[in-house]
Amino acid sequence: MPRQVLLFTGPWADVPLDVLAAKAGEWGYQGVELCCWGDHLEVQHGLADDGYAPAKLDLLARADLHVPVIANHKVGQAVCDPIDARHQSLVPDYVWGDGKPAGVRQRAAEEMAATFRLAEKLGAGVVSGFTGSPIWSYVAGYPAPKPDVIADALKQFAKAWNPILDTARDAGVRFAFEVHPGQIAFDLYSAEVALDALNGREEFGFTFDPSHLHWQGVDPVEFLRRFPDRIYHVHVKDAVLTLTGRSGVLTGYWPSGDPRRGFQFRSPGRGGIDWEAVLRGLNEIGYDGPLAVDWHDAGMDREFGAAEACQFVKRLDFDPPARSPQAFRG
Amino acid sequence: MPRQVLLFTGPWADVPLDVLAAKAGEWGYQGVELCCWGDHLEVQHGLADDGYAPAKLDLLARADLHVPVIANHKVGQAVCDPIDARHQSLVPDYVWGDGKPAGVRQRAAEEMAATFRLAEKLGAGVVSGFTGSPIWSYVAGYPAPKPDVIADALKQFAKAWNPILDTARDAGVRFAFEVHPGQIAFDLYSAEVALDALNGREEFGFTFDPSHLHWQGVDPVEFLRRFPDRIYHVHVKDAVLTLTGRSGVLTGYWPSGDPRRGFQFRSPGRGGIDWEAVLRGLNEIGYDGPLAVDWHDAGMDREFGAAEACQFVKRLDFDPPARSPQAFRG
Amino acid sequence: MPRQVLLFTGPWADVPLDVLAAKAGEWGYQGVELCCWGDHLEVQHGLADDGYAPAKLDLLARADLHVPVIANHKVGQAVCDPIDARHQSLVPDYVWGDGKPAGVRQRAAEEMAATFRLAEKLGAGVVSGFTGSPIWSYVAGYPAPKPDVIADALKQFAKAWNPILDTARDAGVRFAFEVHPGQIAFDLYSAEVALDALNGREEFGFTFDPSHLHWQGVDPVEFLRRFPDRIYHVHVKDAVLTLTGRSGVLTGYWPSGDPRRGFQFRSPGRGGIDWEAVLRGLNEIGYDGPLAVDWHDAGMDREFGAAEACQFVKRLDFDPPARSPQAFRG
Amino acid sequence: MPRQVLLFTGPWADVPLDVLAAKAGEWGYQGVELCCWGDHLEVQHGLADDGYAPAKLDLLARADLHVPVIANHKVGQAVCDPIDARHQSLVPDYVWGDGKPAGVRQRAAEEMAATFRLAEKLGAGVVSGFTGSPIWSYVAGYPAPKPDVIADALKQFAKAWNPILDTARDAGVRFAFEVHPGQIAFDLYSAEVALDALNGREEFGFTFDPSHLHWQGVDPVEFLRRFPDRIYHVHVKDAVLTLTGRSGVLTGYWPSGDPRRGFQFRSPGRGGIDWEAVLRGLNEIGYDGPLAVDWHDAGMDREFGAAEACQFVKRLDFDPPARSPQAFRG
Amino acid sequence: MPRQVLLFTGPWADVPLDVLAAKAGEWGYQGVELCCWGDHLEVQHGLADDGYAPAKLDLLARADLHVPVIANHKVGQAVCDPIDARHQSLVPDYVWGDGKPAGVRQRAAEEMAATFRLAEKLGAGVVSGFTGSPIWSYVAGYPAPKPDVIADALKQFAKAWNPILDTARDAGVRFAFEVHPGQIAFDLYSAEVALDALNGREEFGFTFDPSHLHWQGVDPVEFLRRFPDRIYHVHVKDAVLTLTGRSGVLTGYWPSGDPRRGFQFRSPGRGGIDWEAVLRGLNEIGYDGPLAVDWHDAGMDREFGAAEACQFVKRLDFDPPARSPQAFRG
Amino acid sequence: MPRQVLLFTGPWADVPLDVLAAKAGEWGYQGVELCCWGDHLEVQHGLADDGYAPAKLDLLARADLHVPVIANHKVGQAVCDPIDARHQSLVPDYVWGDGKPAGVRQRAAEEMAATFRLAEKLGAGVVSGFTGSPIWSYVAGYPAPKPDVIADALKQFAKAWNPILDTARDAGVRFAFEVHPGQIAFDLYSAEVALDALNGREEFGFTFDPSHLHWQGVDPVEFLRRFPDRIYHVHVKDAVLTLTGRSGVLTGYWPSGDPRRGFQFRSPGRGGIDWEAVLRGLNEIGYDGPLAVDWHDAGMDREFGAAEACQFVKRLDFDPPARSPQAFRG
Repeated sequence: MPRQVLLFTGPWADVPLDVLAAKAGEWGYQGVELCCWGDHLEVQHGLADDGYAPAKLDLLARADLHVPVIANHKVGQAVCDPIDARHQSLVPDYVWGDGKPAGVRQRAAEEMAATFRLAEKLGAGVVSGFTGSPIWSYVAGYPAPKPDVIADALKQFAKAWNPILDTARDAGVRFAFEVHPGQIAFDLYSAEVALDALNGREEFGFTFDPSHLHWQGVDPVEFLRRFPDRIYHVHVKDAVLTLTGRSGVLTGYWPSGDPRRGFQFRSPGRGGIDWEAVLRGLNEIGYDGPLAVDWHDAGMDREFGAAEACQFVKRLDFDPPARSPQAFRG
Repeated sequence: MPRQVLLFTGPWADVPLDVLAAKAGEWGYQGVELCCWGDHLEVQHGLADDGYAPAKLDLLARADLHVPVIANHKVGQAVCDPIDARHQSLVPDYVWGDGKPAGVRQRAAEEMAATFRLAEKLGAGVVSGFTGSPIWSYVAGYPAPKPDVIADALKQFAKAWNPILDTARDAGVRFAFEVHPGQIAFDLYSAEVALDALNGREEFGFTFDPSHLHWQGVDPVEFLRRFPDRIYHVHVKDAVLTLTGRSGVLTGYWPSGDPRRGFQFRSPGRGGIDWEAVLRGLNEIGYDGPLAVDWHDAGMDREFGAAEACQFVKRLDFDPPARSPQAFRG
Repeated sequence: MPRQVLLFTGPWADVPLDVLAAKAGEWGYQGVELCCWGDHLEVQHGLADDGYAPAKLDLLARADLHVPVIANHKVGQAVCDPIDARHQSLVPDYVWGDGKPAGVRQRAAEEMAATFRLAEKLGAGVVSGFTGSPIWSYVAGYPAPKPDVIADALKQFAKAWNPILDTARDAGVRFAFEVHPGQIAFDLYSAEVALDALNGREEFGFTFDPSHLHWQGVDPVEFLRRFPDRIYHVHVKDAVLTLTGRSGVLTGYWPSGDPRRGFQFRSPGRGGIDWEAVLRGLNEIGYDGPLAVDWHDAGMDREFGAAEACQFVKRLDFDPPARSPQAFRG
Repeated sequence: MPRQVLLFTGPWADVPLDVLAAKAGEWGYQGVELCCWGDHLEVQHGLADDGYAPAKLDLLARADLHVPVIANHKVGQAVCDPIDARHQSLVPDYVWGDGKPAGVRQRAAEEMAATFRLAEKLGAGVVSGFTGSPIWSYVAGYPAPKPDVIADALKQFAKAWNPILDTARDAGVRFAFEVHPGQIAFDLYSAEVALDALNGREEFGFTFDPSHLHWQGVDPVEFLRRFPDRIYHVHVKDAVLTLTGRSGVLTGYWPSGDPRRGFQFRSPGRGGIDWEAVLRGLNEIGYDGPLAVDWHDAGMDREFGAAEACQFVKRLDFDPPARSPQAFRG
Repeated sequence: MPRQVLLFTGPWADVPLDVLAAKAGEWGYQGVELCCWGDHLEVQHGLADDGYAPAKLDLLARADLHVPVIANHKVGQAVCDPIDARHQSLVPDYVWGDGKPAGVRQRAAEEMAATFRLAEKLGAGVVSGFTGSPIWSYVAGYPAPKPDVIADALKQFAKAWNPILDTARDAGVRFAFEVHPGQIAFDLYSAEVALDALNGREEFGFTFDPSHLHWQGVDPVEFLRRFPDRIYHVHVKDAVLTLTGRSGVLTGYWPSGDPRRGFQFRSPGRGGIDWEAVLRGLNEIGYDGPLAVDWHDAGMDREFGAAEACQFVKRLDFDPPARSPQAFRG
Repeated sequence: MPRQVLLFTGPWADVPLDVLAAKAGEWGYQGVELCCWGDHLEVQHGLADDGYAPAKLDLLARADLHVPVIANHKVGQAVCDPIDARHQSLVPDYVWGDGKPAGVRQRAAEEMAATFRLAEKLGAGVVSGFTGSPIWSYVAGYPAPKPDVIADALKQFAKAWNPILDTARDAGVRFAFEVHPGQIAFDLYSAEVALDALNGREEFGFTFDPSHLHWQGVDPVEFLRRFPDRIYHVHVKDAVLTLTGRSGVLTGYWPSGDPRRGFQFRSPGRGGIDWEAVLRGLNEIGYDGPLAVDWHDAGMDREFGAAEACQFVKRLDFDPPARSPQAFRG
């Protein structure tokens, strides 16, 4: 039985949810990963008003869409980042407040906890999102951080997130942290370290998005094999290396589509990800959650792309045999 | 006539200069790129004491070593970085002072200007070094910076460095900024942008170190072809990609030699750099300055390595024909 | 006019033939390569009972399926292998008898001759199968065999198979020996040698299955170019190399799907075979026989896979131009 | 301090030991891995005659050669192989006896035990060699073995070798089993299994010869990382893949140098092994034993080759830094 | 809005235009690139008879086909080639005349001018075609031409083509010269030179056919980036390198499909062209003209192929986003 | 016993022979391939004056140089080329005469015959050189030649060269035609055809220069395997592909060293030729003639390069074993 195909609503925050839902249904999606920005989902509103969640579900149900996952990447980013001007545009005004870093981080943490409670009200078992990182700026550059700087940062991370994860546990909702540059974990080995910093607590797993691993040179399938029990959510997004001899990999800061970039995001199936291998990897580890299209492609009309992506994912997904090879996992 | 082979003294700051000089001479080096840390070169001391510079030159001359280039990467880093605790270990106490960021940056700028004056006293025509960067932490990660953030940072960079470069001009010394992660420029396109921010002033060019370009996926020879008139100094340092499917490229923060890293620095000739192409590239653009060995290899005894590196560079370097193909440069 | 697409029934021996036939018809197959194991085809029964063959053909015709090829790999394996316990499960009880090697081989040879006679009764022009090999265990390992050991083995092979091929000739049926590890020929050069050992007699040609060549590093198209007149049957089966640095190619003994294997079989189109080149190679040599799907994929539900494979093969196959490039064959 | 460079005497069994020793000394070797065939080393003679071992050591000392390792691959092969005619040429007459398999295996086991006692007399801490395998012929081919067949074979292997290893333990000598096609272990995963079958007993480790792993597609460095404490000896031998589209990897049975082979052995440094990576791998795991040249190259005069190989190995070997990266091993 | 898909009628000159038009319409084409040979389009007839052009357009309109481009490669070839016997079959008798080279070239030039006038009458804004070259035979071989020989040839080229391009300008029609071996420009750098020889006049641009660049090792996308404003027409044609170790790239003179060739033309999507990158490149430069299938594939039935090619191109073409990345072009 | 290392004197025609000879001796060369242009060797002078040849040999003997091969590429080019202005600079005035093509070709043929007679006087067993080609300009480009055009050209070639080869036979000297673009044969398959056109006569074989095959994509070792008995001479010259996405392979007409070229010639060992494989290929076929350095490298001082090349070739050459693998040649 194939997995549910969702649309991640983040890149469509400019489209009112009812309009987007109608389109998503037409394109063939079976659900959405609903994002807590724009009018798609408002955390405090949702908690304060008992009619809010049912109304959202109802609106989506009219297009036959489910909501197994909600997302709050933007606020999560502020939980343990050094706060600067950029964060003001990421978080609601009431989280930003006076913008003093310690306060912003504290209010962001409370908002994330609230997000898990809202998920429970929506019947969504998973919240996806970012963590931020106290030491992202040291990952590359000069001077390299001493090991104790890294160790301290991991403690900060755990201290900030453990209370949020306690709320998640109480709500019966899991956190699918998206392994992504800018976060406490961005590749296989940093994911090991982050999981250890939380003593491997069950509420914390990963949103697996192969595009971010691909351009770094990490094989997405190796990631799946390393964390077979911690894949709590999956993003379908493609990326292609466009190294021309002049462009390099540290070029994600140029605008999407700029030819000076050494990698680009692409509509699924049009980049360098080996989706056949990814899908088999998901089958091997027994992942049976949804596949959410996180659509980005600077060279394609987005509505054309979102529609073709849904079809692509449906073609991609196939049943493993009854006697699954995951028996060999060890 | 082959180029001079220098030893970059930075990684040997723990070795007293007279001891290092004797070894370097034995290993076959013809000069040093003398670094302003450890006891190798002290900026304020050198400017205050008229006997200091001649004494250093004399000490080195006893091992038949020249000093065509001096280096001050560590202080340069503080000129336009956001200052944090790591910078205290990079700069002299009198630059750090009370550690308040604006003051540290100001004093670092003054120290860099002083470094150019000291170069003049030593008869060195080039100072190599770093610039720092107000926006390094935004190069990768989340959220991506808006174009105006980048534009502002470039203005800050120019504002901080133009006065230093005025001093350089007055001293008749050029700045060979090392294109390197963590700096205002770290690849080909960011070097374009940085040069533009300074309106291409003549005092500002590059230390070309192919190792930092290689792991990013940038072809070092393309860099030479793009900036034929701005290569003011060259570092000989090798790097190898060690992508195993599990390691990625954003792993420079793990200790050297750690197998979780996706790239490693190597003794010249033992990594992935195509030195044949690099040398021909240098010949094509008519570079006739020194070649400085910046030796790093976590898997090799450093004295063994420094000796083999000197021989490697001498074998590498050959004469282009009288009628040089640089005629085709355009 | 496209070639017939067949289903090789071997991997479905657990499914009664009438059930399988109905499914195969629905999946789009035009015929079967009927295997002499399970209830699909019983050699002695078929020869003894004049109604048997017509009944089989009738059963298949109800699903619009033809039978241009029958297969007897398991008994063929015993014709010139050193017999051990594994062979008992390959052959019918009356072939195994007391299990003494010489007798088993003799009875296997008789059973193969009978298979050709049964093919004639079914109107099938080709029998596919294995040969076994007296020296397979020496192909790799230690110590390497002396040339005379190889020469002797080839004589044994010819002595065992020539009488069977005489029967084939008399029945007007050809033997399409599947080039496969474990057999007298398993790659291009061993196929040359085997053909020579039989003095190139016309009854003996090959079942071309590119998957077995691919993982050995042999280009399947070169095989077609080398033996343009000896391709008597074709298996469509894909394989993918999954070398991770830890797995090697001598890993076919691990279970299918086990990640320790360095290669895996795959549903056609999902592995590493260049089917475009294979199809053009078949067109170049003028092969106009059927294409039989030999379906194996440890990571996919087999019914889903068998259906998609049939569609894949139909899309793959196209008409060469009237003025065929096979004119250049020479 | 570089490692000792030895000559493996096996391929020179036709040269009297005194002649070979003189040549080896001239070529620059510092010792030999002395083989128990030809006149180089005779096990029973050496045990029976107390003067034998000192005389051998004396003969070698005259050419300044040490004997840290002795080898008995040929007899080891017979310990758990199915015995056939080929084994007669591998073992001494008194081991072959009447050639009945069970007896040959038993006497081969006793001869191996004797070899360990002779090593002790010679002051050699390591015996290198083969194990044979009850199931080598099932590694590739048809039909694949059932898991219980493999399990039984591993038990046979353990039963045959445990008594020999007891003798090794009592003699204070370790067994460096050469991972090699034809043996109980021939790649990384089969080495895991073999080690487990012996419950990881300390006397049993590996002779690491990267050439045999290379052509199978296994990365030799991954082998070192997997078994950092079990590398008891190292062979320096190169191999090159010569896949032309027509040749495959299962071609080791063609004579050396035959162009139908898909791989060839080569004089060290002239094949496809990444020796830089191998040497660093040995440094990482802290291997400080000898490096024995096992010279094979069908396209080169062997004396020319043995001399160049010795120089090659000496250039290859370099000191790791005092603070070794093996700290990261985990 | 996707681009028009045309069929280039050249390879179908043996098919009467009405028959071809009916087929093209059924295959899904929206127009044709009508070629001035066979009965498809006759230049002098078309200019002399005012009813000719409307009749052609009418004939095509019956199959819903447009004619935005006409082609005259064969006559263009004679404009500045050294004339030999091969040209007689390329041009109409009245152009060949007595075959004296100077006269043939002159009459070919007049015929090309006439072609532009006919285009105007047909309402086609573009003529595609070849130029010939006075120095094609010197591009490879011995001895290499001196620079002044090249310079003279470029002057000849300009002198011959400028008057024709004056006519094109007056007719309001552009010349889309096909960059192709045998012509004045055949790769990126020769296209630069040819454009310079005409002082970059606006009437002269390129028919971009990636197949001819691919086998030479030129990246088609780099060509688009170099000449973003000069792509006046596009051919969709695929090519595949078939280097086997024995075949080389200078093998275009063997017949199509001959296995001695090192490259072959292929039905679109079945060769080596990265169409995803080509399409994005066309989007980047804002090309909105038609895509003409120039169908050649020696291994496929041409009618089957022309039909699948039309579908392939339609699937290939997609809308770029409203905010196009061509903003980054510079 | 290693092969003789020669210097091909062609690129040094501006250096008087006595000066060049002294240098060549110092660089380590053991002989020269003496070229019939400049003052190195004058054909008519050498035939007319009985003292000429002994004087040349004497001059060379003073530097310990042998002359096993003489070369006349330039005149050979004119034997069956279409003659144009470029040929005037290739041939002596008395061959050019009035420059009418038929006469030039005739006189060039006579000069080549004379060259063979001069070789006999010098004791050189081989003349190397070019053939020219009536159809070189049709090898690539448009339109492709019809098969009968090729057949006619091959007849012309045979008609022109057979009388010269008769002279060669009578003089006991062989012609080592250099397979090279611009000649009747330039790759493996054209060499087959050319040899057939001469009915395989013994006087006609090849100068094997791997550099010209390499950039075409032809594996030089395959050439050796195809013509094991026809390698009459060897040139050691390296080439490197420098495809950047913008440069292609049809770029040999740009000046050496120009970065627009897609390939460059290089000092031996600094390009892309796999010399290890080439040398083994020469050993396999039993070639025991000289190895002549034909030195070209636009990026290196030629005297530096000629000296390093001689050392390179000496290191390259090694003895095959007594029992040579050429036994497998077939």
